Amino acid sequence: MNQTRPEHEPLPNHSHITVLATQGYVLGVEISSGGMRLSVALADLQGQVIYQARRRLSAPLDGPGAVQLLQEMIAEVCSPERLKGSRVLRCGIAVGAPVDARRGVVRTMYRAEGWDHLPLKDLIEQRCSIPTILDNDANAAALGEATFGAGVGERNLVYVGLGRGIGAGIVINGTIYHGAGTMAGEIGHTVVKEDGPLCPCGRRGHLEGIASAQAIVRTMIGVSVEYPQTEEAIRRVTGGRAEAMTVDEVFRIASEGDSVAQGVVNEALHYLAISLANLSNLLDPGVIIIGGAVALAGDLLFGPLRQMALPLCLRASTEPVRIVPSALGSDATLRGAVALALQDV
Amino acid sequence: MNQTRPEHEPLPNHSHITVLATQGYVLGVEISSGGMRLSVALADLQGQVIYQARRRLSAPLDGPGAVQLLQEMIAEVCSPERLKGSRVLRCGIAVGAPVDARRGVVRTMYRAEGWDHLPLKDLIEQRCSIPTILDNDANAAALGEATFGAGVGERNLVYVGLGRGIGAGIVINGTIYHGAGTMAGEIGHTVVKEDGPLCPCGRRGHLEGIASAQAIVRTMIGVSVEYPQTEEAIRRVTGGRAEAMTVDEVFRIASEGDSVAQGVVNEALHYLAISLANLSNLLDPGVIIIGGAVALAGDLLFGPLRQMALPLCLRASTEPVRIVPSALGSDATLRGAVALALQDV
Repeated sequence: MNQTRPEHEPLPNHSHITVLATQGYVLGVEISSGGMRLSVALADLQGQVIYQARRRLSAPLDGPGAVQLLQEMIAEVCSPERLKGSRVLRCGIAVGAPVDARRGVVRTMYRAEGWDHLPLKDLIEQRCSIPTILDNDANAAALGEATFGAGVGERNLVYVGLGRGIGAGIVINGTIYHGAGTMAGEIGHTVVKEDGPLCPCGRRGHLEGIASAQAIVRTMIGVSVEYPQTEEAIRRVTGGRAEAMTVDEVFRIASEGDSVAQGVVNEALHYLAISLANLSNLLDPGVIIIGGAVALAGDLLFGPLRQMALPLCLRASTEPVRIVPSALGSDATLRGAVALALQDV
Repeated sequence: MNQTRPEHEPLPNHSHITVLATQGYVLGVEISSGGMRLSVALADLQGQVIYQARRRLSAPLDGPGAVQLLQEMIAEVCSPERLKGSRVLRCGIAVGAPVDARRGVVRTMYRAEGWDHLPLKDLIEQRCSIPTILDNDANAAALGEATFGAGVGERNLVYVGLGRGIGAGIVINGTIYHGAGTMAGEIGHTVVKEDGPLCPCGRRGHLEGIASAQAIVRTMIGVSVEYPQTEEAIRRVTGGRAEAMTVDEVFRIASEGDSVAQGVVNEALHYLAISLANLSNLLDPGVIIIGGAVALAGDLLFGPLRQMALPLCLRASTEPVRIVPSALGSDATLRGAVALALQDV
């Protein structure tokens, strides 16, 4: 490389140029499930976020619209004053949707139009001239936790996101494990209770149909109608907004002694414990990290969950598998997008 | 290295010498569960087995006795006339027992004495002066199938051994995945039916308690006592040796229309299908390879198993996960031991 090139003239930035980077920046991008929230973070090569832009939309964005908005946000974040002549080496994008990580394509986006087979990686590379890596949100969060969060020091770990849906990201030997068809991690659609409730995917007995934030809240609302005392507890804890009840409020109502809520929570915990123990026996991860809205229940979740899961886990030593909350919380996916970019530099 | 050293004088063989081997041999060793069968294979660097020694014992061998016998068998197999001055570069050992693959130690051996914490790798290295790699039988079989059998061409696969017990070997990116505590692959002890029969490990609901060869035969014998027609079918198929009934005979009786046997087989298949689908959704392997005694049932197993499992598998494409029989059959573990050695050369 020409060492005399002046610093204010950025080097051309194409993926076929191999650079052993010692200076520069990376971008992390998060597109939420449904395409309602977009975040772009500029980070240094240590993963420190320098600047961040966020957009929250009032309606789902279609695929082409999201690409256009992303391009504008990236241009804003990567302003010449901010970069001061340094280059943006990579862009990691985490999408709350099924993606083909190898080809860099979004397979589809639930509750939004124009995302089917969207070649997001290629589009961003063409429009922004930054080599780009695409993955789904659970995989990115797993890598984020492994790099900056609760999984630092572990080569093999699983991140389980308990949100609206349930998905896992598997890190093996320090990198995301995708499987043969880049579909690995679908723990939400494993059968844990054959006669269980319907899963949003249309099948019965899946973990997601029992233990996702949505499933727990929906079950709670469904059963409470027959118990006036429970309805009263819901009104009290939610401040009268029962229809907007959150999953950690269900845990709170249970912890305050409401037996109906306790039944709902225990059912979810029971099958979650079986799933995590089965996962532990199959993969023997160094740590299982739990994120998403359900993890906001904190000790009300983790205490009983460990108590139920650990007796089901085979372990060689007396040391039980660690089941811990996400350390990065709602930043896990965006930080993971940064980690995706860094890992490719 | 001294190129003029005469061929009949073997080079010293220590693990600290890094050799880019172009000639020489490797050993594969199989020690069966219970320590009743020992096999030693000499193979060339293409994995072709040149010579093989087998011992079948009338009683379980204790740990030190097995080490002594192995040393003798290795000396026999590696006779100077056979090696003709070439060196044995590595020894791969597959044991039908829980092992700590990283430290090369057998944790314990069921139905045999003197195996607890046996440092088998170190003992063989000291006595035979051959760098040695130790693993369990399912892991070795998985690598064997990946290298020489039904998994050739796949980077990510799972081998499920349905024998007396049930264990899996997971190959990721072409090498055995051990997990954080080298305990990965314990699919036999995942909960699939909470109120299911007792597993040999003492817990309830495990796949091994329902779908191992032993579990299927035991259930068949247990339920048949109430059905004279079924007892008659057992006598006919087993030639009067009902007490020695094999699992493929249970499948045969079912295929001949006996409804009691069909019930037993369907129960096992049902939970096996759920387990394999859950495995597929979590790991998205390129292929799931089934070995062990249950696999001997052939099409009577694989036809209905695929029919039950595939509808439970999420797949990105229309191509279903492949569930195939072991190509190496009863040689999978020994060939896997050879592959263990080769992979370390």
